[in-house]
Amino acid sequence: MISIGLLGCGRIGQVHALSLSRIHGARLTAVADAVPAAAETLAKAYGAEMRTAEQIITADDIDAVITATPTTLHYEQIHALAAAGKAIFCEKPIDLSSERAAECMVAVEKAGVAFFTAFNRRFDPNFAHLQAQLRSGAIGETEMIVITSRDPSPPPIAYIEQSGGLFRDMMIHDLDMARFLLGEDPVEIYATGSCLVDPEIGAAGDIDSAAVTLKTASGKICMITNSRRATYGYDQRIEVHGSDGMLRATNKLEHLVEQAGPDGFTTAPNKHFFLERYADAYIAEIEAFIEALASGNTPKPGISDGVAAQRLADAAAKSLETGTRITL
Amino acid sequence: MISIGLLGCGRIGQVHALSLSRIHGARLTAVADAVPAAAETLAKAYGAEMRTAEQIITADDIDAVITATPTTLHYEQIHALAAAGKAIFCEKPIDLSSERAAECMVAVEKAGVAFFTAFNRRFDPNFAHLQAQLRSGAIGETEMIVITSRDPSPPPIAYIEQSGGLFRDMMIHDLDMARFLLGEDPVEIYATGSCLVDPEIGAAGDIDSAAVTLKTASGKICMITNSRRATYGYDQRIEVHGSDGMLRATNKLEHLVEQAGPDGFTTAPNKHFFLERYADAYIAEIEAFIEALASGNTPKPGISDGVAAQRLADAAAKSLETGTRITL
Amino acid sequence: MISIGLLGCGRIGQVHALSLSRIHGARLTAVADAVPAAAETLAKAYGAEMRTAEQIITADDIDAVITATPTTLHYEQIHALAAAGKAIFCEKPIDLSSERAAECMVAVEKAGVAFFTAFNRRFDPNFAHLQAQLRSGAIGETEMIVITSRDPSPPPIAYIEQSGGLFRDMMIHDLDMARFLLGEDPVEIYATGSCLVDPEIGAAGDIDSAAVTLKTASGKICMITNSRRATYGYDQRIEVHGSDGMLRATNKLEHLVEQAGPDGFTTAPNKHFFLERYADAYIAEIEAFIEALASGNTPKPGISDGVAAQRLADAAAKSLETGTRITL
Amino acid sequence: MISIGLLGCGRIGQVHALSLSRIHGARLTAVADAVPAAAETLAKAYGAEMRTAEQIITADDIDAVITATPTTLHYEQIHALAAAGKAIFCEKPIDLSSERAAECMVAVEKAGVAFFTAFNRRFDPNFAHLQAQLRSGAIGETEMIVITSRDPSPPPIAYIEQSGGLFRDMMIHDLDMARFLLGEDPVEIYATGSCLVDPEIGAAGDIDSAAVTLKTASGKICMITNSRRATYGYDQRIEVHGSDGMLRATNKLEHLVEQAGPDGFTTAPNKHFFLERYADAYIAEIEAFIEALASGNTPKPGISDGVAAQRLADAAAKSLETGTRITL
Repeated sequence: MISIGLLGCGRIGQVHALSLSRIHGARLTAVADAVPAAAETLAKAYGAEMRTAEQIITADDIDAVITATPTTLHYEQIHALAAAGKAIFCEKPIDLSSERAAECMVAVEKAGVAFFTAFNRRFDPNFAHLQAQLRSGAIGETEMIVITSRDPSPPPIAYIEQSGGLFRDMMIHDLDMARFLLGEDPVEIYATGSCLVDPEIGAAGDIDSAAVTLKTASGKICMITNSRRATYGYDQRIEVHGSDGMLRATNKLEHLVEQAGPDGFTTAPNKHFFLERYADAYIAEIEAFIEALASGNTPKPGISDGVAAQRLADAAAKSLETGTRITL
Repeated sequence: MISIGLLGCGRIGQVHALSLSRIHGARLTAVADAVPAAAETLAKAYGAEMRTAEQIITADDIDAVITATPTTLHYEQIHALAAAGKAIFCEKPIDLSSERAAECMVAVEKAGVAFFTAFNRRFDPNFAHLQAQLRSGAIGETEMIVITSRDPSPPPIAYIEQSGGLFRDMMIHDLDMARFLLGEDPVEIYATGSCLVDPEIGAAGDIDSAAVTLKTASGKICMITNSRRATYGYDQRIEVHGSDGMLRATNKLEHLVEQAGPDGFTTAPNKHFFLERYADAYIAEIEAFIEALASGNTPKPGISDGVAAQRLADAAAKSLETGTRITL
Repeated sequence: MISIGLLGCGRIGQVHALSLSRIHGARLTAVADAVPAAAETLAKAYGAEMRTAEQIITADDIDAVITATPTTLHYEQIHALAAAGKAIFCEKPIDLSSERAAECMVAVEKAGVAFFTAFNRRFDPNFAHLQAQLRSGAIGETEMIVITSRDPSPPPIAYIEQSGGLFRDMMIHDLDMARFLLGEDPVEIYATGSCLVDPEIGAAGDIDSAAVTLKTASGKICMITNSRRATYGYDQRIEVHGSDGMLRATNKLEHLVEQAGPDGFTTAPNKHFFLERYADAYIAEIEAFIEALASGNTPKPGISDGVAAQRLADAAAKSLETGTRITL
Repeated sequence: MISIGLLGCGRIGQVHALSLSRIHGARLTAVADAVPAAAETLAKAYGAEMRTAEQIITADDIDAVITATPTTLHYEQIHALAAAGKAIFCEKPIDLSSERAAECMVAVEKAGVAFFTAFNRRFDPNFAHLQAQLRSGAIGETEMIVITSRDPSPPPIAYIEQSGGLFRDMMIHDLDMARFLLGEDPVEIYATGSCLVDPEIGAAGDIDSAAVTLKTASGKICMITNSRRATYGYDQRIEVHGSDGMLRATNKLEHLVEQAGPDGFTTAPNKHFFLERYADAYIAEIEAFIEALASGNTPKPGISDGVAAQRLADAAAKSLETGTRITL
């Protein structure tokens, strides 16, 4: 039984607490939050103790810690957890600065602690199945990947302002997915983007619509498009074209009822947003982390995957800024 | 080059004339219609002669005749054509009375002339492919067939009144399809029906919604549903369930554009009605008839298929009337 | 907090125990099973006590009891539970005999206890949404319903022998769905069936393929087809045709990945069988039961729905046996 | 009745001759081909005269000429046709060199003759419907377009060598479609590409896999992917994302029969290649040309559209060569 501490009891912390309650082999021992009421609610609901973050980090009765705190706290907490010898499950991004994220990587590797970067989409059953089929050679050699990711609506401007920008906040998931599927690292990246959804996003120095092209050393091409708006629900699709065929993962709809009438045949819109769309993935990623710890394996994706995706996001931002293709 | 005469220049006669213009190996030599203007238009459009029906039936320069005349004229024309040694392409039904249709069969078989019953749906590329797959054993042994046939809207009451009723006018196509797919003749039939679309149809002594169950000697089951109304366009589907899997033919849509929005994903409605839906089938059935004549093969479906389908329609009507299962 | 006792810790009992663990407002207090080890496992997993069935039925600390015992025990347990004033959540069928089920109904109504017949499919989110749309008038007046239900493979012959036959064991769910969707009771039923999947099923006096036609007083028609075999997974579909359009619920696939190659585009097969397909429905039905108890409402579907579906199954069996349409 | 001359009786010339035979308001008067047998076959099949190209270009009895000759002959023929005052229906590309194509444009505009650039895809009923919906505001403001175009297999190396390269030979259709849908001209283009399908294509100095990103002055983004290989048939899709929703045109399948079995549900592959996929578009484009001539309207797309698409193809080629974004 792995004993878990949770730092941060906000929306995503609550998701992880619920996931833990459904997993055999782990228990939520203690929770912490800067807002005591948030910690108390979660502690009560799942039979955990309320502690301070420091108490959790240094506790003898805790094996692994989930950091679901604001990004600005990650750097310090990761260093403290590494020093304390705790296994770490870290929400992305590790840090808004790739340099500081790389410093975390040094600390983690030096301490030799297990580290899991929470790229939840790798654990969506559909995307995981697609990737497994790809690796098994179901469509031969991978040639081209098209990743579509559109949020139902933009976040508040206040969120945008401290998010690090679309590439680091939103596309980072797709950049990790690109690495996951390509099986090799991109060597070139080109990004373009526009502010089409909300002029206030542009005023905040960000874009809301973006297209990125990646190419690997062997010539594989990956295209990613992002939008902060999709009236028909969260749009999350992957298409991989290979030498022997194509694999694609379609969207998850709200229900399976279709209505026909004079205008044609109408199915449901997509699941609204990430909590609904990736409900299974959130459970599966914790399961994978726990299984790795229990079996002594290195959790995957690790901290190097987190750092690599951030470096791609940085390069995309630089490409957009300079109007040039960036060589990695 | 097969020389063709056309009796009847109404809607379906025009369809056949157009089909003939696209087929190598046949030419439309002469046309006849009780309304001279109708015959004249068609004659001009396709470079054919205007003649009387009698002239066409007895002409030396005509090999085969298409009877696209009102059903009440079929009996006499078929007997005259058989006597004249002409190959016959006959629109369904052969005659509203199965007994009289059977008399036509005797005359045709005695004269030894080729006869083609125009069950056009057998020649729809999708249904033909489905049937070929079935015969090739793609899903093992056939166990259950479900045929759905819904018209976009009911015909005028005047048409209903002289149509012979839903089973003989509309379901006859599905009953033929059942025979085509089952590969053996039904031994039991049960029919039920209602008047739900338009009370005037009921007042005319007919139904507008029907469900029929057929069973063969080997236990295969076929269910057919009919409605005189489908707001989403002509609904024409077949599903066959077998020991190793399922085959189904879906509807043909007006176009392939899909629109997504807050209500979900909407595709086009079905092709509106039979002329649009079965455009390919109308050409293919004439081609099959011409090819049979050119190669000396017996055209299929023949007159016995036409008579058999009508007997099933009669039995369905009797089942509805008596509330009992009819043994065939 | 509603306190629940569970009679029967087999497969379906385990499903209910798991559902209860995810529902706020209820707790599993005690479990019983003729096989002590089965009860012990469940008791441990969910923190419940092991008791005898009798202890549970008469316990002061239990408000409601789930009967997940073999059908042969239901009659006695329902009577005892009614006498003890317990709310009852009863797996279908209430009893293999409709007469004995009706006796249970008398006892339950006399005692005035809440009774829920576990027709789980009513609580499938897709079917529930379809029914709500239907009731809201989304497609106008209901005209025709087509229900398809095919198991992936037949149960063991030993199961068949004590099942009451396909109509009472398998189609009963579809007959209840027909009542749920029609909104009025059928007045006519016709059944046909065959043994096509496995001759041993025929040797056991049962059929494995069936088609049933129902008609209501207002002329609505419902067709149900059943098969004990579907190589592509559990086939559970509903289609409702109305005056203004059509509603249909399609199958739930194993995943959303599609593969394209020279043979075309292939999606996943259906979810394998009822535990996977109706996972959400099993939770939702318990939730509905608990909510009804908590709010003092009458649980729905009630015991009269259970009895009505069984009477339809009896009539279907009689129709098959006699080859006649049965008037209800 | 518009009188048409046809220069070039190869594959695409034959397609146009067949289309003309189905169009009222035009007749094929004369045909010419460097290979007399090719011209003779077509002349016989459609009742046209065999003439030399020069005779057709200068004929008094011919209103409009279709140039379906090798690209290298276009420049001279267009100049001669313009001088002779003939309306011109020209297969793409106008000339492999954009400069020479622009010279053709000058000659055509100076002569004031009607000119139609045969971008057939604009006339595909699905794409035309999608564009009309877009223009009607069905999804609000256009934000992002994704165009997918994959051939079933690469052409012979000899063809590749004289094709002008993938951008000018294959993607030119998609670049025109981008212009057609965007409704404004791109101001930036970035291209990347690889040789993944066949190393001989690389040895011939070309690529077989490409991705291009366009951006307009208002910030609209368009991504195009091309491959010379698709094992599942000709892949021709368009997806447009707008402020209020999404429009997409899916592929045309070989048939509408679906087969289900243990591996899932399989539909047909796509129509094999352009002749099958765009059969309707080939007829519709000639119809549009004839209608424009008959009504005195300017045919659309005109020569400026042909030149504009070629300039985009040139820019894509330059972007690939230099690794930089090209400003237009």
